Amino acid sequence: MRGFEELTPLSTAIEKLRQNLRHRITERETIRTESSLGRILAEDIRAKKSIPEFDRSAVDGYAVFAEDTYGATPTNPTSLRVIGTIETGADPSQLPEIKRGTAAKIMTGAPIPKGATAVVMAEHTEEKNGTLEITRQVAPYQNISRRGEDYQEGELIAKRGTRIKPWHIAAIIQQEITTIQVLRRPHIAVITTGEELTEPGTAKTPGQIIDTNRPMLKALIMEEGAEPLDLGNTPDEIEEIKKRIEIGLSLADIVIITGGTSLGERDLVPEAVNSIGKPGVIIHGLRIRPGKPTGVGVINGKPVFMLSGFPVSSYIGFKLLVKPCISMLTGTRDLPPPRIRGRITRRVAKPAGIRAFVRVRVMDRGGGLIVEPLMLTGSGLLSTLTKGNGVLEIPEMLEGHDEGEEVEVELTQPIEEA
Amino acid sequence: MRGFEELTPLSTAIEKLRQNLRHRITERETIRTESSLGRILAEDIRAKKSIPEFDRSAVDGYAVFAEDTYGATPTNPTSLRVIGTIETGADPSQLPEIKRGTAAKIMTGAPIPKGATAVVMAEHTEEKNGTLEITRQVAPYQNISRRGEDYQEGELIAKRGTRIKPWHIAAIIQQEITTIQVLRRPHIAVITTGEELTEPGTAKTPGQIIDTNRPMLKALIMEEGAEPLDLGNTPDEIEEIKKRIEIGLSLADIVIITGGTSLGERDLVPEAVNSIGKPGVIIHGLRIRPGKPTGVGVINGKPVFMLSGFPVSSYIGFKLLVKPCISMLTGTRDLPPPRIRGRITRRVAKPAGIRAFVRVRVMDRGGGLIVEPLMLTGSGLLSTLTKGNGVLEIPEMLEGHDEGEEVEVELTQPIEEA
Repeated sequence: MRGFEELTPLSTAIEKLRQNLRHRITERETIRTESSLGRILAEDIRAKKSIPEFDRSAVDGYAVFAEDTYGATPTNPTSLRVIGTIETGADPSQLPEIKRGTAAKIMTGAPIPKGATAVVMAEHTEEKNGTLEITRQVAPYQNISRRGEDYQEGELIAKRGTRIKPWHIAAIIQQEITTIQVLRRPHIAVITTGEELTEPGTAKTPGQIIDTNRPMLKALIMEEGAEPLDLGNTPDEIEEIKKRIEIGLSLADIVIITGGTSLGERDLVPEAVNSIGKPGVIIHGLRIRPGKPTGVGVINGKPVFMLSGFPVSSYIGFKLLVKPCISMLTGTRDLPPPRIRGRITRRVAKPAGIRAFVRVRVMDRGGGLIVEPLMLTGSGLLSTLTKGNGVLEIPEMLEGHDEGEEVEVELTQPIEEA
Repeated sequence: MRGFEELTPLSTAIEKLRQNLRHRITERETIRTESSLGRILAEDIRAKKSIPEFDRSAVDGYAVFAEDTYGATPTNPTSLRVIGTIETGADPSQLPEIKRGTAAKIMTGAPIPKGATAVVMAEHTEEKNGTLEITRQVAPYQNISRRGEDYQEGELIAKRGTRIKPWHIAAIIQQEITTIQVLRRPHIAVITTGEELTEPGTAKTPGQIIDTNRPMLKALIMEEGAEPLDLGNTPDEIEEIKKRIEIGLSLADIVIITGGTSLGERDLVPEAVNSIGKPGVIIHGLRIRPGKPTGVGVINGKPVFMLSGFPVSSYIGFKLLVKPCISMLTGTRDLPPPRIRGRITRRVAKPAGIRAFVRVRVMDRGGGLIVEPLMLTGSGLLSTLTKGNGVLEIPEMLEGHDEGEEVEVELTQPIEEA
């Protein structure tokens, strides 16, 4: 039995991963724009036409010559003759022409008639028997949405690598682009190791343990918009582990394997990875807690993440390494997770030189948020994730936090009311 | 034409909505635990058994009498006789018994044998010919995960109303609970008003406008884990609008209708809502910008949200009112959105007494984040959502922000590198 020869700082690990990762997802799928929420654009989308397609009214009111309104006030209103009404949806080629001294009633979104240079809001007018009294002046182009002010023809609406949000769907459909190309979803294979693991309801001896890592990792993968591939549980035999990783590498973009990386007689998983191809294991042991026995291998440019068998460590390993790797494969950027600031209820200490991830409970006690540390250790305890609602990251150079100190916490679940 | 008689502050609007909303989602679906990600628990889930089910080793090492190690140091090691090996997954009833002076090699997760009171980590031992040298003392129960330290039998794992995250799935499966009851998804009907609206590819006159609100709202609904029901576009005719809202109320939990609420000749949608039932319109006009013409109706306890026809306003209305309403219907709490702090690049001013939502671009210029305001107005411009990546909320009592001030922004898309 032996420890890790050298622990790698997290930032170095991510950099090494980036350097060794050659695999990219490039296959495209053509899908309906309406069904593209959360997918990643595989093409730049540009405006096929200017939006608005014509100058239109931004308000309900009256289209006028701006000059005709100059000086108008409630006590000294301007009078104009109303020559018609322009409804929203009216054909821009079929409108009355506005001449000095006249106005047309106009609805929000309706095309601006020839001659008119501004729109007076309805609130600043009174119409009686075809005569309009205007009580406030308008400047040229006031209350007019100019042609192309939303998008100019040819303008980029959303670029390759964008994760599609509701407003992208709206803006693309506005261009009458009803199908788009997105990257196929990343496929991520999950393998757990250890004969002691079993599944619910399976006959077992009392010493066996339910395999919780596979269902948790598959759900974490789905949360990222990727597709999990469940390659099951393998006994602690190097040939079997090797075979299973090879299947994962042939079918998926990323392989995750948990357990078998730690301090047993042999580091079975790293050995297996090294026997498959080059460069093999590039990181084994991270300066993080929990998650120290985390490793990363790369085979022909594809990543194999060797996570701890402990559920909290494997969650942390997923969050720190697999999640950014998914973004690297697809060339997309991520939204940061929600974070809050609160006061810590008691001192937490950790070894210097290690980046620690403390599970915490964030509670709203009325006068600001409080942060109760649950545990720094206990990486085998799922309850620190289900009872907690946040993770406090303490960087390498700090030795912890004092009671009452303000800290920043990543929220993993909603804030509780205390 | 007329303005709004009275504008309601946002907080009052939410409170009024809460008071009038009587509808709740109570129907349950039984689904596989593994497929429950993001669903809302309809039952409390309690531990059927303690986890761990037995005292187990937290490390690879040797199970010992703690007392046997007292005083052990590298220069003065303790010697013990190794009587066997306990593998992870071993049957707890079939283990060797540890007596004073003896130790058993033990793997992480393996059951603690009778007699042993602690585990010495492998790193602090050396085994040679059946003799173990221990170089560091351990306290009683050190490196042992106690039975029930994760979950005690009967303990609450996740309560009704919890939105299921990956670790809940793991913890529930650990209990061999393979199906659970969740609330059915909320159904939300979407209606847009206005003959001028059309769909991509539909033959149309030049003045028509693509209906972008329906696809955007349907995507916003899906992002909340709810099911959109597309009830199409209706002409500006009160009877047709009324009929469509009634269909929505009969089929869905929430009805959203856009347009027709503003300052036209008649407030068609509010009139329609009031003609359907009681209490009818409870809010018409909000002290927010954009989104002033937003209204809320309640019919027999079910909500009808009357959002602006302008895409940015309807997005803001959804975020401020519909999203919290979905949580009220299901009795769940929400994670807050991601927020960042940055310096604003130029002054933004807004009227006092109004809560403003300024679309901004957040960029990383190396030395901290900068926040560039896009527009306070322009609620008809989707581009302020696709080009922006954040929303700056300015509360009622402020009149804006000065250039260089630090502000907090809700991120809607990833941060850009400048």
